[in-house]
Amino acid sequence: MDLTKYIASIENYPKEGITFRDISPLMADGKAYNYAVREIAQYACDHDIDMIVGPEARGFIIGCPVAVELGIGFAPVRKPGKLPREVISADYEKEYGVDTLTMHADAIKPGQRVLIVDDLLATGGTVKATIEMIEKLGGIVAGCAFLIELDGLDGRKAIEGYDCKVLMNFPG
Amino acid sequence: MDLTKYIASIENYPKEGITFRDISPLMADGKAYNYAVREIAQYACDHDIDMIVGPEARGFIIGCPVAVELGIGFAPVRKPGKLPREVISADYEKEYGVDTLTMHADAIKPGQRVLIVDDLLATGGTVKATIEMIEKLGGIVAGCAFLIELDGLDGRKAIEGYDCKVLMNFPG
Repeated sequence: MDLTKYIASIENYPKEGITFRDISPLMADGKAYNYAVREIAQYACDHDIDMIVGPEARGFIIGCPVAVELGIGFAPVRKPGKLPREVISADYEKEYGVDTLTMHADAIKPGQRVLIVDDLLATGGTVKATIEMIEKLGGIVAGCAFLIELDGLDGRKAIEGYDCKVLMNFPG
Repeated sequence: MDLTKYIASIENYPKEGITFRDISPLMADGKAYNYAVREIAQYACDHDIDMIVGPEARGFIIGCPVAVELGIGFAPVRKPGKLPREVISADYEKEYGVDTLTMHADAIKPGQRVLIVDDLLATGGTVKATIEMIEKLGGIVAGCAFLIELDGLDGRKAIEGYDCKVLMNFPG
């Protein structure tokens, strides 16, 4: 199934010179959405995954159905102040300045094999911070899965040494 | 299955006097998470639903797997500035001041039967604004489903006349 036709490309969003890849037409189409989730669920099966981890909010859109499909748990990665219990955190660099992500300190049990799921691999800052937190909790990052990889933004460097599944590539 | 034991109650969060009901232990448990999603998917089947709508971010956690389970689409409700194409919006009252939610203007086709899914029914402000947007687009709100209803906060009044499914009740 060619998923690329379900991605809307919005020029100059969120700012001049950027082409935003919008996954909402894919989510709106039951067959395409189901297909994408099953592709990643199959990848998770092949890697003996115990737990799915996804960054808010678009990581939830793909990661949560994958977890339910496999009958395993999902742990959210959120911005500071959104998780109510004890958290651990990791910083990552953005174009201007630094941002922080958090996870619950009990989100991953030592030795659990974790799949990180997000909609987009761009510069890889989010996934790198997520790997850092999972490993701090003793989890094994057994793979990373993305709907879309933007080429030429060095996202792969951020996850060097980790297995990676991508469903679509677009120019960055 | 008693889902209530998978809900963590955090006293005085996010502020003094409030007990926050945290669904993350439920999501972390594959069986409980799967069970909750299937309960709502069954409800959706009984109401001939064409499309799931859920507010960010916790509405995605339940609503997205329900959509994938049924092989139907999902449309996100997001805060202003998060959706890249033409949007419609609705305001709702919060404890202090007014907040705004948005949906893509093409998210719902006229006549589609829509199920709104969220983690929590409290005062009902979010769901009321969501109903307003769906109906503005010509959709039929065929039901609302929540993991948790907080009693005594008048959430039911906000959705009076609409069918509603709740998996757990807690004191508000």
